Amino acid sequence: MRHFHIKPEIRVLGVDDGPHSGSHPVPLVGVVFRGNRWFEGILKTEITKDGMDVTDKLIEMVKTSRQLGQLRIIITDGITFAGFNVLDIRRVFNELGLPVIAVSRTKPNMRDIKKALKNLPDWPRRWDIIRRSGKVYALRPLRGTRPIYVQPMGIDRKTAKQIVEHTRGRSSIPEPVRVAHMVATAIVRGESHGGA
Amino acid sequence: MRHFHIKPEIRVLGVDDGPHSGSHPVPLVGVVFRGNRWFEGILKTEITKDGMDVTDKLIEMVKTSRQLGQLRIIITDGITFAGFNVLDIRRVFNELGLPVIAVSRTKPNMRDIKKALKNLPDWPRRWDIIRRSGKVYALRPLRGTRPIYVQPMGIDRKTAKQIVEHTRGRSSIPEPVRVAHMVATAIVRGESHGGA
Repeated sequence: MRHFHIKPEIRVLGVDDGPHSGSHPVPLVGVVFRGNRWFEGILKTEITKDGMDVTDKLIEMVKTSRQLGQLRIIITDGITFAGFNVLDIRRVFNELGLPVIAVSRTKPNMRDIKKALKNLPDWPRRWDIIRRSGKVYALRPLRGTRPIYVQPMGIDRKTAKQIVEHTRGRSSIPEPVRVAHMVATAIVRGESHGGA
Repeated sequence: MRHFHIKPEIRVLGVDDGPHSGSHPVPLVGVVFRGNRWFEGILKTEITKDGMDVTDKLIEMVKTSRQLGQLRIIITDGITFAGFNVLDIRRVFNELGLPVIAVSRTKPNMRDIKKALKNLPDWPRRWDIIRRSGKVYALRPLRGTRPIYVQPMGIDRKTAKQIVEHTRGRSSIPEPVRVAHMVATAIVRGESHGGA
């Protein structure tokens, strides 16, 4: 575990998917922010509903990006995308050398996740990725509000807390994740407001 | 011409298109910001390369949006989209009741535009829209930098200047337009940085 000195204008990639419907490819959007303030760039790829490709697609999207050299951390909206396409944040950290924080407004209910996963033929592989994703911590970046839940990979809990605090705006969810959510939603639906 | 009292957190829609290639539909993206700071929502539609549909598509996109009631102004990246699909900002103002500011980094060269337009069969109709779009003013929102060029429709020049000053960030181009440019580009190319 590394503990970083975090600059307020740290360059961060926020990642979220769009809604899935039928067998269409699902957009996966990465938004590059400096801290919680400046929209610096955007990446887009496509993943498969209930597929197993989100980890490879995310790694490839970031690796081939001109933004790679400047990025310091990746923040994702949870670890399941496009249904049950499970993101292996340990592999993302190992292959890109960038820490990852998966954030979520609700506490992941492992029992429910496992139950839902069992509808998929290769569920043990997906469950294994989820189990290896590390501990979930509650974090309260905004006083007097409900906590959010984070899974830090490649950094300690304290550093993860600092990063969430530097990258959130008026919402408790980091701005780049909130904006990635809106963009990915609008690509599919033509409109989105407010965000994650 | 109306002169408004402009709040720094005015709700503004920034509009730009993505790059066009072949006969594919071209994305037209509208990003809703509060002032130069908060990404509040996003709208997306599609227009035709060298078509005549951008005015109808933009009006429809805004009219059917949940954002309509809060919007105070529309800022567009120039008035030609997807090649020579010319936006009728006078009609946008009349039909939506929202002032429009077309902004551009370079001074529109009317002679060159007319010459290029003449390659299209119905060029007089397009040229007529351009001629009725009002006067172009140079504006210097950032001291010591080159001016940008604006065409205000439905507001006076002084109000337009204030709005550009409230909505720009570190660039002289208003943030919602800069971000709409990046999003529309990434939808087509999978990546975009820095913006208009």
